[in-house]
Amino acid sequence: MGNRERIIETTLRLMNELGAEAVGTNRIATETGVSPGNLYYHFSNREEIVHTLFDALEDEFHDVLQRDVVRPLPPERIAAFYLRTFDLAWRYRFFFNGTLGLLRRDPVLAARYQGLQRWGIAELGSIAAGIAEDGNLTHPRGAAGIASLALGTWLIWSNWIGFLQISGITDIQRSDMTAGINQLFDVIAPYLEPEFEAAIRECIANQWAP
Amino acid sequence: MGNRERIIETTLRLMNELGAEAVGTNRIATETGVSPGNLYYHFSNREEIVHTLFDALEDEFHDVLQRDVVRPLPPERIAAFYLRTFDLAWRYRFFFNGTLGLLRRDPVLAARYQGLQRWGIAELGSIAAGIAEDGNLTHPRGAAGIASLALGTWLIWSNWIGFLQISGITDIQRSDMTAGINQLFDVIAPYLEPEFEAAIRECIANQWAP
Repeated sequence: MGNRERIIETTLRLMNELGAEAVGTNRIATETGVSPGNLYYHFSNREEIVHTLFDALEDEFHDVLQRDVVRPLPPERIAAFYLRTFDLAWRYRFFFNGTLGLLRRDPVLAARYQGLQRWGIAELGSIAAGIAEDGNLTHPRGAAGIASLALGTWLIWSNWIGFLQISGITDIQRSDMTAGINQLFDVIAPYLEPEFEAAIRECIANQWAP
Repeated sequence: MGNRERIIETTLRLMNELGAEAVGTNRIATETGVSPGNLYYHFSNREEIVHTLFDALEDEFHDVLQRDVVRPLPPERIAAFYLRTFDLAWRYRFFFNGTLGLLRRDPVLAARYQGLQRWGIAELGSIAAGIAEDGNLTHPRGAAGIASLALGTWLIWSNWIGFLQISGITDIQRSDMTAGINQLFDVIAPYLEPEFEAAIRECIANQWAP
């Protein structure tokens, strides 16, 4: 791994541990074991490293929410999808537990994040619509319909890790992630066919098993 | 209003506008129109002002979630309750859109916030249990039951204003708040008696009306 990649990896680790605002280029250089001059050879500033991390997040996001979502959607695939989205939120948690602070300081990142968020919520809606077309989801009761399921899912997903951290849980366990997946699933569950719901719940419970 | 109260009010306004971390005692003193010496006569540091704001938030919270929640809970009272909780989240939004950053720097505040959050989620569970005892709510399908409704409600409520801000909405309208109330209500709605649900939705739609 070259210095550029090591700088990116160190930044992600430090920001996840300490929060984005607490991590400056000097600290990143020291922890990576490179000189500040070497860091500035690869990146013109801290924001450029964060943008590079955002590129990676965006790529993975597209894979998880679109490329790998192939209809029909059986229970195993839906459960695996939830697991992957939570894994993603965990690995890039500094983004999701301090989003507003990050975006306030960086209008370019703000525009990109807003685009990704809009896309993500729309994609969650398409996935729910797909489950409905497969005959496994009835129409939600509120006026917002499937759009409400998508946004409710997004809100719980994007804030779950932050909620655990705010709650003082520093050593996050698999069971904490499973609780989040169940919490998110409870938004959509009332509208699923009962057998389909039970099959997904079983997959969620089993997929962390050794 | 004395200088002490004006310092508190200015801090709340500035932190809501700019985020807690961007606001120091010098800025607070300047915007209040007092000398730094006068500020330090009233408060030994920035944290003490934030703790005073937290006292006020905690008091209002207890009123909204407990003192003013009198059974039975007819639709108008439930809709009014939602409105008040969103009004509270709006007035103290700096707490909810940057919680983790605030708590990381202040372990005393972290412990207090965690206590309030635990209490709030439990209280939301009690309110839902009360609606069930009144005969208007059936048992939720997931294993977590009413606890899932309480936590789902909490997650959407505490993150709604931040979500609007992250989405780039700087001039938040009543319709944005109504959308949040509906989003939150959609968590509990699937388990309500249909007529009871419809009556609450009508109250939510009407209560912002002039």
